[in-house]
Amino acid sequence: MIPIICVVGASNVGKTTFLEKLIPELGRRRYRVGIVKHDAHSFEIDHKGKDTWRLREAGANTVVISSREKVAAIRRTDGEMDLQVLAGHLFWDEELLLTEGFKRSHFPKIEIFRAAVEASPICTPRDNLVAIVTDDPVDSEVPVFSFADVAKLADFIEERYLKGRRKRGALVHMDGKQLPMKDFVCDFLVGGIVGMLSTLRGWKRPGKIDIHIRLGEE
Amino acid sequence: MIPIICVVGASNVGKTTFLEKLIPELGRRRYRVGIVKHDAHSFEIDHKGKDTWRLREAGANTVVISSREKVAAIRRTDGEMDLQVLAGHLFWDEELLLTEGFKRSHFPKIEIFRAAVEASPICTPRDNLVAIVTDDPVDSEVPVFSFADVAKLADFIEERYLKGRRKRGALVHMDGKQLPMKDFVCDFLVGGIVGMLSTLRGWKRPGKIDIHIRLGEE
Repeated sequence: MIPIICVVGASNVGKTTFLEKLIPELGRRRYRVGIVKHDAHSFEIDHKGKDTWRLREAGANTVVISSREKVAAIRRTDGEMDLQVLAGHLFWDEELLLTEGFKRSHFPKIEIFRAAVEASPICTPRDNLVAIVTDDPVDSEVPVFSFADVAKLADFIEERYLKGRRKRGALVHMDGKQLPMKDFVCDFLVGGIVGMLSTLRGWKRPGKIDIHIRLGEE
Repeated sequence: MIPIICVVGASNVGKTTFLEKLIPELGRRRYRVGIVKHDAHSFEIDHKGKDTWRLREAGANTVVISSREKVAAIRRTDGEMDLQVLAGHLFWDEELLLTEGFKRSHFPKIEIFRAAVEASPICTPRDNLVAIVTDDPVDSEVPVFSFADVAKLADFIEERYLKGRRKRGALVHMDGKQLPMKDFVCDFLVGGIVGMLSTLRGWKRPGKIDIHIRLGEE
């Protein structure tokens, strides 16, 4: 439901550096942006001997550390989590999700390209490439932006993925897998659920509803 | 829906050390345990100059880093998140949530007590204290377990908070706040939602359904 755009490119082409410019540009436009970064290695975010590390070592499934300014959650996974599942669980008030990497996903892609790093872009429109950011000449069917064009790229993203989005919608996961739904089916489901919930005491029309159902054994 | 128990006690009384024994004991009983640790200071989980840190500095609301073995999410917050809201969002397949600290919450509490650290326990049954773990003599209305009694404490937790829990159930959050529901209302809601979803192509009775709805502006 949240739009996902993958910022892809060869290693060391400058994806993080580019995101460091794009994120504040979208922030100035009042969009809350979430980021997913893929790590091929087993990153160390909590450090040996620290409490969070000790509690994970002891077998905790998820360890959360919470302060006034931020909250961090570290969760064991059995294989890499699907991007869509990740988006459904970990981003609940963002308007846009940008990923660094995930070139093999089916989501729209913006490629950062430098001729000095790679001979030609690593993605094509068949990979759902929607734009290229480069200062080098490149032969492409998709719009090309220079590194200085961050504002124009933000316009492009806004126009194409953020404006006129259906404000109303639902995302359903069954055992972590997304259930595909056509718009009218989705509207029917949302209408049915909101209808049921709105009869309950405590109902006050929210902007967002999250429902977690466990069915257990048959 | 997930039971929450706070492990409390004076500073340096050994809460983390005790949790390091309790978590594996519950793990052996096949319970997935989540942990929330409160940090009064602004913890540093991603480090200056690292990509995750750079992307947060650039203004990303949430930065997630994902690998095959784990996934970590770091989210900016505007004040400390409520424990119940945290539980609803960040723990979706755990059976029990243990916190380290949160002595001022209204959840059941297990106090770790050492006479060498504090003259008397910091919580009373009025604070929803349900058990004390200590090797020192203590005058208490609630069950007292010695530090060696981890298995007995796990029995107590299992008996009181985990067994006979309804396997089937739903948790509804509206704008992050839990909607209280009686069992029959919950059954009605689950029946309605499952009934609607089961008519869709792609339905295969799952163990778990997660629905995220955005209603947007009226």
